[in-house]
Amino acid sequence: MPQGQPLVVPDDGLTTRQRRNQPLFAVHTGDGKGKSTAAFGLALRGWNQGWRIGVFQFVKSAKWRIGEQTVLERLGKLHEETGEGGPVEWHKMGSGWSWIRRKDGTEDHAAAAVEGWAEIKRRLTDQTHDLLILDEFTYPIAWGWVDAEEVVAALRERPGRQHVVITGRRADPRLLEAADLVTEMTKVKHPMDAGRKGQRGIEW
Amino acid sequence: MPQGQPLVVPDDGLTTRQRRNQPLFAVHTGDGKGKSTAAFGLALRGWNQGWRIGVFQFVKSAKWRIGEQTVLERLGKLHEETGEGGPVEWHKMGSGWSWIRRKDGTEDHAAAAVEGWAEIKRRLTDQTHDLLILDEFTYPIAWGWVDAEEVVAALRERPGRQHVVITGRRADPRLLEAADLVTEMTKVKHPMDAGRKGQRGIEW
Repeated sequence: MPQGQPLVVPDDGLTTRQRRNQPLFAVHTGDGKGKSTAAFGLALRGWNQGWRIGVFQFVKSAKWRIGEQTVLERLGKLHEETGEGGPVEWHKMGSGWSWIRRKDGTEDHAAAAVEGWAEIKRRLTDQTHDLLILDEFTYPIAWGWVDAEEVVAALRERPGRQHVVITGRRADPRLLEAADLVTEMTKVKHPMDAGRKGQRGIEW
Repeated sequence: MPQGQPLVVPDDGLTTRQRRNQPLFAVHTGDGKGKSTAAFGLALRGWNQGWRIGVFQFVKSAKWRIGEQTVLERLGKLHEETGEGGPVEWHKMGSGWSWIRRKDGTEDHAAAAVEGWAEIKRRLTDQTHDLLILDEFTYPIAWGWVDAEEVVAALRERPGRQHVVITGRRADPRLLEAADLVTEMTKVKHPMDAGRKGQRGIEW
């Protein structure tokens, strides 16, 4: 349903429209599947609204390319060709962030994560995207590479109307506290428990 | 990661490859967000593999059209134009299933749900799709319109390599028992609790 009835109407001095148009900060966490997939599904919706989509994957593997990247980048190309939807940028930490020219071959993941977050902060200030997906960004925070307080402060202070989704297990409680929407994906049953390995089209 | 290590290797006489290529039956349930969105995200991956995607939405509203439908149908058109990805069919119960010519204006949702399931059974037999998303199909089952045993039997007996995802709250225990993968999306925090209504691009 497009418009549900809110349970409470807050005394925050905002009109319903103002409140509705507040930018959203969502966290998808838990041990189950669907955290990233649901975020990329949101990117589909946003693209359809003409939003400028930015995906930042804090994954370690350089080789890793999932189907969603191919399809969302294809949609971004479609936008360039026909004006449909919005532009799409997809950046991955694993292969070295694309905006960093120097590739020194070292694999300092902590430094790469810090640099990724610094770029995202710049983009938040510049309002580069309408929807930012910080995929698996919970891990550099959990490992202490990126400071949770700093992330929360930057998100609280972000200007304009930028939606942000952070995915990953072990989300810091301060992220959950700051988020407007938190969904926990819980694994009830998984085929790998029954000895199956991942398969093309399902896992990637 | 593309290939995880399974916790146990079952004594089922199958090779790893055979086991990996078994068709998947997944259920996304729970009260949280992301059940359908994650399913449509899977459709992105499947499209990218060239799979024939079939979405069947068991929702009541006729007017309802979500961004994912527009985008996935656009991807289906792209397949027709360029051969990229796979074909996409999207059917909704609310406006009357598109394969039923007669529109008598009555809104017998139980009959419509039964007809939807009958068509899906035909398509499973014919192996029409590689991925079938039965969105909110848990409800006609929960309401007794469609028999859970019959659904489970049809899914167990489906030929070939057809992946099936069922979404919705209140999933019947027999579905969960039969499923290879069950994810429960749990609402931890939702902006409607804070008096916000749904917004374009996020909720639809």
